[in-house]
Amino acid sequence: MILTVTLNAALDITHRLPELVPGTSHRVAEVIERPGGKGLNVARVLGSLGYETVVTGFAGGPTGAVLRERLAGQPQPRPVRDALVPIAANTRRAIAVVATSNGETTLLDEPGPQVTADEWASFLMTYETLLRDAEAVALCGGLPPGIHVGAYAELIRRARAAGVPSVLDTSGEPLRRGIAARPDLVKPNADELAQLTGSREPVRATRDARRRGAHTVVSSLGPDGLLAATPEGVWRATAPAKPKVTGDPAGAGDAAVAGLLSGLVDSLSWPDRLSRAVALATAAVLAPTAGDFDRAAYEELLPGVAVTELLPAA
Amino acid sequence: MILTVTLNAALDITHRLPELVPGTSHRVAEVIERPGGKGLNVARVLGSLGYETVVTGFAGGPTGAVLRERLAGQPQPRPVRDALVPIAANTRRAIAVVATSNGETTLLDEPGPQVTADEWASFLMTYETLLRDAEAVALCGGLPPGIHVGAYAELIRRARAAGVPSVLDTSGEPLRRGIAARPDLVKPNADELAQLTGSREPVRATRDARRRGAHTVVSSLGPDGLLAATPEGVWRATAPAKPKVTGDPAGAGDAAVAGLLSGLVDSLSWPDRLSRAVALATAAVLAPTAGDFDRAAYEELLPGVAVTELLPAA
Repeated sequence: MILTVTLNAALDITHRLPELVPGTSHRVAEVIERPGGKGLNVARVLGSLGYETVVTGFAGGPTGAVLRERLAGQPQPRPVRDALVPIAANTRRAIAVVATSNGETTLLDEPGPQVTADEWASFLMTYETLLRDAEAVALCGGLPPGIHVGAYAELIRRARAAGVPSVLDTSGEPLRRGIAARPDLVKPNADELAQLTGSREPVRATRDARRRGAHTVVSSLGPDGLLAATPEGVWRATAPAKPKVTGDPAGAGDAAVAGLLSGLVDSLSWPDRLSRAVALATAAVLAPTAGDFDRAAYEELLPGVAVTELLPAA
Repeated sequence: MILTVTLNAALDITHRLPELVPGTSHRVAEVIERPGGKGLNVARVLGSLGYETVVTGFAGGPTGAVLRERLAGQPQPRPVRDALVPIAANTRRAIAVVATSNGETTLLDEPGPQVTADEWASFLMTYETLLRDAEAVALCGGLPPGIHVGAYAELIRRARAAGVPSVLDTSGEPLRRGIAARPDLVKPNADELAQLTGSREPVRATRDARRRGAHTVVSSLGPDGLLAATPEGVWRATAPAKPKVTGDPAGAGDAAVAGLLSGLVDSLSWPDRLSRAVALATAAVLAPTAGDFDRAAYEELLPGVAVTELLPAA
């Protein structure tokens, strides 16, 4: 199975309304509640593709209970297995206000719950147990209050000790510390990459990020596709046509991670892994919510993804 | 005891952040969750003043459970007694995004829960039971889906049959239908009054509203105070100085209703009831959240409220 870790899971709430005007009152036309947080979105894409997937991390309070209830039985054909560790504090909400008149999305991210030392210890035991059956593990998103900034580095070292390849998708100091623990794959976006390396030149920044410790770095560059610095060379993969974003662009990076993880456990070549990741990311921005993708668009896009080798193996 | 009815109660969530910019992501600095809906706010003010108060209406789902948990033990010195009727659907959320840089408040009101015919029948039984011990009843706010538009008219007739004076604070068609059932007091604001009567001239509109069936109409005119058309005459009551709004102005109307209700059960004269209502409404806009008021400001304001008779009894 594939394991995804979401230490700061959220209940994603989407409010659809005609237009958001600060300082005024709005009647919300439609409310959608879904399990949220990067690792849960990655798992949902994997389950939709038919991969056996287990999610862990933290969930607590009334919001955590709703999150777990919404997770049960989803997605098809392979529901995600819930191995979230209970905490006393309330799981955060992440509210996306979608203005239907102009497609504009406004995000309100609540602060994460305080996690205690005992809860972290309980999580580590769960994590070690789950690693025994994992073919790969993805470590996704930010850290809630109470979790030390080197947490991902610790989880990467434990995965390596268990012989499980690790994928890291986070930002800021947790990313910096995590890379130094030598994960198998890191997937920053353009902003995270620039913050890490100080460079906005994608090829330079991606290779620089790799030199900091990651075996492979795959940078997601929005409509410009993916850039991969691997031990076998540097590649760029782009979709056949820049998609018109109709849904939640935040889900694209999570779908790319799902593509890379599934390609890893299927032992695909780098060009094939990148094609899958780009097609999934593109199909994700056509779906209305993060963690979903347009299946027909994915299958149509897949053969048309262009993968070019920019530099041979170093 | 005083009974307040909130058919479309809400979990009030306040998000404090520096500035709300549509189309961008925001980290919410502070989250406050409180029981919400006009009748619950009125009850909280009454409990703070020391009156025995019971709340009924509907609560359901995980949001309803949080609402009831937050209601328990609040406020002091007299916690409100919870007689909300359970429903299967989820109580709505009402999110107030408060921008701390400019004090601007943006409201996101979710649609109310669907209430079934059985749940409405169950509510009516609870209501009849509670009326036996009630000195007055306030019927507050909008109607959730599934509740017929003449619901308040029905509740007013039942209160009269039980010998309990009724106060109605709602808008639109439920207000129009409710007035026709001859409640003892109606408290529209300027917009509700204009919608009901077609007139923006406060004295004319307030008297016109009264002619539609209410024994007394007290209109809340924001910083211009209250205008009361009573069987004993027409009065205007204004605060000593227009307050600088620092909190949630939505709570002012609810505090005014609490003042009028408590003055009714205390058998105060109209000038004294109006003074209390104006002082409470003014003290409420100085408090950060609806249902609270600044106690020191209330006591300081009370003797300074100006009440003038505009017209003698008709």
